Amino acid sequence: MNPKERSWIVNESFFHAEQVPYYETIMTIGNGYLGTRGSFAESYARELPSTLVHGVFNHHPSDQVPDLANVPAWYAVKLTVDGEVFKLDQGTILGYRRWLDMRMGTLNRQILWESHAGKIIRVEFSRLASMDNQHLLLQQIKLTALDDMEIKCALFFDYENAFNVAYAEEGARRVSHWTDVQNGNDYWQGTTNQSGYVVALTHHIDVDQSLESYAEGDNRGQQFTASLKNGESLDVKRYVTIASSRDSGKVADYARQQLSEAVNTGYLDLEARNAAVWQDLWSDMDVVIKGDELAQLAIRFVTYHLLIAAPRHDEHVSIGAKTLSGFGYKGHVFWDTELFMLPPFTFSRPKIARNLLMYRYHNLAGAREKAAEAGYRGAMFPWESTDTGRETTPRWTLPGKDGNRIRIWTGDHEQHISSDIAYAVWQFWQWTGDNDFFANYGAELILDTAIFWESRVEWNEAQQRYELHEQIGPDEFHENVDNPVFTNRLTIWHMQHAIRTMQWLQQHAPEKAAALATQLGISDDNLSQWQHIADHMYIPRYGELKVYEQFDGYFERNYVHVPTYSPRSGNIDVILGHRRTNESQVIKQADVVMLMALLAEEMGDKEELLRNWRTYLPRTAHDSSLSPAIHAWVGARLGLVDEAYELWMKGAGLDLENNKGNVRDGIHAAACGGLRQAVLLGFAGLHLSGNGWAVRPQLPEWWRSVSFTIYYRGRRQPIIINND
Amino acid sequence: MNPKERSWIVNESFFHAEQVPYYETIMTIGNGYLGTRGSFAESYARELPSTLVHGVFNHHPSDQVPDLANVPAWYAVKLTVDGEVFKLDQGTILGYRRWLDMRMGTLNRQILWESHAGKIIRVEFSRLASMDNQHLLLQQIKLTALDDMEIKCALFFDYENAFNVAYAEEGARRVSHWTDVQNGNDYWQGTTNQSGYVVALTHHIDVDQSLESYAEGDNRGQQFTASLKNGESLDVKRYVTIASSRDSGKVADYARQQLSEAVNTGYLDLEARNAAVWQDLWSDMDVVIKGDELAQLAIRFVTYHLLIAAPRHDEHVSIGAKTLSGFGYKGHVFWDTELFMLPPFTFSRPKIARNLLMYRYHNLAGAREKAAEAGYRGAMFPWESTDTGRETTPRWTLPGKDGNRIRIWTGDHEQHISSDIAYAVWQFWQWTGDNDFFANYGAELILDTAIFWESRVEWNEAQQRYELHEQIGPDEFHENVDNPVFTNRLTIWHMQHAIRTMQWLQQHAPEKAAALATQLGISDDNLSQWQHIADHMYIPRYGELKVYEQFDGYFERNYVHVPTYSPRSGNIDVILGHRRTNESQVIKQADVVMLMALLAEEMGDKEELLRNWRTYLPRTAHDSSLSPAIHAWVGARLGLVDEAYELWMKGAGLDLENNKGNVRDGIHAAACGGLRQAVLLGFAGLHLSGNGWAVRPQLPEWWRSVSFTIYYRGRRQPIIINND
Repeated sequence: MNPKERSWIVNESFFHAEQVPYYETIMTIGNGYLGTRGSFAESYARELPSTLVHGVFNHHPSDQVPDLANVPAWYAVKLTVDGEVFKLDQGTILGYRRWLDMRMGTLNRQILWESHAGKIIRVEFSRLASMDNQHLLLQQIKLTALDDMEIKCALFFDYENAFNVAYAEEGARRVSHWTDVQNGNDYWQGTTNQSGYVVALTHHIDVDQSLESYAEGDNRGQQFTASLKNGESLDVKRYVTIASSRDSGKVADYARQQLSEAVNTGYLDLEARNAAVWQDLWSDMDVVIKGDELAQLAIRFVTYHLLIAAPRHDEHVSIGAKTLSGFGYKGHVFWDTELFMLPPFTFSRPKIARNLLMYRYHNLAGAREKAAEAGYRGAMFPWESTDTGRETTPRWTLPGKDGNRIRIWTGDHEQHISSDIAYAVWQFWQWTGDNDFFANYGAELILDTAIFWESRVEWNEAQQRYELHEQIGPDEFHENVDNPVFTNRLTIWHMQHAIRTMQWLQQHAPEKAAALATQLGISDDNLSQWQHIADHMYIPRYGELKVYEQFDGYFERNYVHVPTYSPRSGNIDVILGHRRTNESQVIKQADVVMLMALLAEEMGDKEELLRNWRTYLPRTAHDSSLSPAIHAWVGARLGLVDEAYELWMKGAGLDLENNKGNVRDGIHAAACGGLRQAVLLGFAGLHLSGNGWAVRPQLPEWWRSVSFTIYYRGRRQPIIINND
Repeated sequence: MNPKERSWIVNESFFHAEQVPYYETIMTIGNGYLGTRGSFAESYARELPSTLVHGVFNHHPSDQVPDLANVPAWYAVKLTVDGEVFKLDQGTILGYRRWLDMRMGTLNRQILWESHAGKIIRVEFSRLASMDNQHLLLQQIKLTALDDMEIKCALFFDYENAFNVAYAEEGARRVSHWTDVQNGNDYWQGTTNQSGYVVALTHHIDVDQSLESYAEGDNRGQQFTASLKNGESLDVKRYVTIASSRDSGKVADYARQQLSEAVNTGYLDLEARNAAVWQDLWSDMDVVIKGDELAQLAIRFVTYHLLIAAPRHDEHVSIGAKTLSGFGYKGHVFWDTELFMLPPFTFSRPKIARNLLMYRYHNLAGAREKAAEAGYRGAMFPWESTDTGRETTPRWTLPGKDGNRIRIWTGDHEQHISSDIAYAVWQFWQWTGDNDFFANYGAELILDTAIFWESRVEWNEAQQRYELHEQIGPDEFHENVDNPVFTNRLTIWHMQHAIRTMQWLQQHAPEKAAALATQLGISDDNLSQWQHIADHMYIPRYGELKVYEQFDGYFERNYVHVPTYSPRSGNIDVILGHRRTNESQVIKQADVVMLMALLAEEMGDKEELLRNWRTYLPRTAHDSSLSPAIHAWVGARLGLVDEAYELWMKGAGLDLENNKGNVRDGIHAAACGGLRQAVLLGFAGLHLSGNGWAVRPQLPEWWRSVSFTIYYRGRRQPIIINND
């Protein structure tokens, strides 16, 4: 492959059993409706196969919280060669290659395999999740005999694989979410046992020869036999459709209708249609970096994984922290979406960003419920969100080595998420100028969360200031602290922009302003109060140079020089221990620096920002995958291009190098979004300026150019920045 | 790392026990005198540690043939932390990174490690083989305590590691070559048990604190203890010298003298001197490819491994097929040197090429002996050569799975090596204009091997032509064939150039001409006979289009379409079986195409060459690592740039991707040399033209430029080819 091809391809040259769960994740295919990990058509010991469908959550009785229900493996194939089962860990692998082609979302595999009996067969697989019809999956299998042989082939839905897998410190636990299962030759249907979603799979097989079918055991799936002479080939094409009761009340009919239309269209045309939609998506979303092959591959990799995860036709679902590529975080939606994954779409494919924001709008009820339960007013969004919009953060960790569970406080106290959502709404509106969205949906999100903060802040009479106690900022090494700069400062921003929102509504959509004022109970008093909070919110600072103090008393904790603990792939809190970490200044991830990313110059002049950067960098463990890309973004804006590049590469290595060793649980989706933002907003320095956009490039000197496409106020704008 | 740095670095991010033998090979350090595999200072189960010194061969009584005797591990360190031995497979690896910096030949490693008892230590290793003083090796160890701890450190020569390892189909066999061993705290000496070479190692340790020494068991090596507080560091610098009886009659004195001078010079200065020589070497040998990071890394990687293997101060040794980086082929010298590894030096660092050619000159006696034993005249070079110049090809393989051994015929019948050497001599002379070398040494090599051929060729009276029976060409899948085009055609070339050699001598060095005529017994009759052979040597051709027929009857064998057997990492003769392969047209490697590389237009016009290319490519298995690069070279010259690039990358993947899975046995050195030739002579199209050199670029379109340095007739010439 030449460099141009290499930057579109994720490649695996050898089969290593222990790498199965890693490649499964990075070779996930998907289409914004579902995601299928790159698990093999034949099954292996360490695999974590999953097909996850957006929105199909289920709260299994044995779990604390719901997760996405795993659908049977729609691509399962049992192949025998003269009676021997084709498996890579049996017989001999004479050659192997697997590659994900990100241009059109196809996962391909070629194997030259010899059975124990010495029969040689070349097996080629290809699969895709259609971007054109989100219910459609395609699989092609080509078998070439290099000896005379009889093959048997069974294509079925592997219900045995439809388990969710959770990790305790030792070993995995498997849970099935399904009940009322119908499992037939060309049809599978199941109902989630708590939430009652019905999911149906059906398939059609085309073989290029007339073959005898045979009955395999319980007769699940479609089977055939073929006698092949040395040199003969067999081509199998499989059409699969998946639908759920979220799509239609008549799931079976719907899935069969989709299948029938697909079969009528034909395999080649379906492939072409998928490729055409991919081409269209890439025309907006591709970022071309000349002069840096690895960065080019990395930016396409993160974009690919955002594209296959982002719902394009559904505004009632959003992207989980691990997308649909693994069981990590159970498919739950965090702030990761609004501040990391969503902005790339805001800039370059705003329709998708709108869907993601609408998910929050449709889930305002859950946020209001959470606020009320905690004794507050307005809307307080859950730290972890699923299909119900209710708080679904587990309260306890799984038991550790010592059998003990640890209380998880984020669902209680990581309250900045409500402002994170408001920030994303505002940012979307500023870039798109989508007044319809803002007036009808976005404003309500900003205002009702502002009402929450108004009820949440604490007035310190002695100091004549507002404070926030018992909070968790981005740095989750320090839980339940007082006055985290991140949350306090975003609250100021929130108050200011809630006022601006109301003022804009009053001016441009007065009926909506009046309706919302009534509905949410907003009077002029509230606006005055918001201004008062913005003016009197406490922001801790430290020392003569008044660097931001991450939270009250942060600098009184023990200093640990984090760079000494390198190289390091594990988390530093595991090394130092939970208590020692908590009592130190070691921070998990960008926190004050995250704020510098979001608010930029509003946080201070360049000298002040550099002072804070130099303060926090040696204290930062980057133990959250959210950290390196944000540092790259801020570092680039501060002109620290070499440092920024190193941090960007560290972020890119999370998935591409598995440098934290946890890729099996799913893609680091926030890192994906962060890396795109670091290129556009950091290295290219894209920003809003006056009534338009501008760039302020700080490119690594070896980048010859970077180019990408943005939409500003509905207008498509390709941008090329040459590095002269 | 940015792209500029990445192209100088071979990186390993995780420790995987099963990858130990792979990384050991690619992270070999060396200086043209010795090579040390990248084995760890502490020892592991799968390791194949070796330090091999050029020329120190020994024929162990249990072996068929000699091999290079493995010297004790000079870098061995035993480190304990509060009594626990530091080992990566014990305790916990909290972080790991190892990298070879090819700019200056340093191998570095950083580990963050936690003992079972929970003590954390950061361990940093660095080693180099000095390019400035070829007897000198340097090792630095930095220990940083991240808890309070007592460490013990023993630095010793690991004699237990001084075994050679040979593979049978199952399991390894270990052989020690040493006798009369002296093993002390700062000194090791051994004598090879058959050849009688004496090798000595000595070392000096500098520690930046005054420490207590302790006695470890049998008191080998130097030991100390240290109590470190959390945050404290300890810096250990080790100077090692190695010498042999090939260097001095007083080995011990010599090694100690070298050590004493090194210690007086000091570690930092020694590092600087090493770096300076590397810089000088790279100034001639670097190839810069812009627009292709992977190709840039690959070309530096192959150059690095040629540079560390090539003797710079010794003309009595040459480079083995696996350099000094592994036990493969026992350090023996094949045609790989003259036709693959040597030309890169001829073009860009001719002094080194001269040394390599002189090795053959000094070993003429062995070649004459081999010719005489076989009943021929002149000099017939051995297929495998060591320190004696005698044939050292084993006659039998190691027993296979079935316990059977197979007869190895190459030592008997792969006779083209004598012409390969003559070709390399002529090429060196044409590029360098080194008349002194040619008159005094090179001419004799060409002439005495010509005399061999004169006595070897067989006159076919019926056909009125010369033939060669029972030969092996480059394609070793077909042994003992008649009239291989490769050998027959090179014999014509040989005869022609032997005549030109004699004519040039008579004109420019008449005394030498006369002396050689007397010494070798060359009269005008011989020259006439050589011309007759050149005019009447049979070259098999086939069909109406008269493609070259690789040997008599080749096209009557069974056709097997090799591309069907893909992807494939194993050899096709193993898949098809020895007999079926032999009876087919499947060829192991470039054979007719190799001839097209060497003789270029002399083999035909472009159409004819393309015809032969298209004929042989689908029949070629590339199962020898010598094949892909040669195809890339020829393909590029034929303007098939994309095909050529794919083949070049396949060649680069032999070591960098381990795509044949055999890197543990050593670097694919011929591939290294072939890849450099493919860039210079293929893609850049460098060639001799009239009275000078010229380029005829056929660059891949994504290469923005390629630049390198050549010496033509003593004049240094940097070349930059921009791809416009």
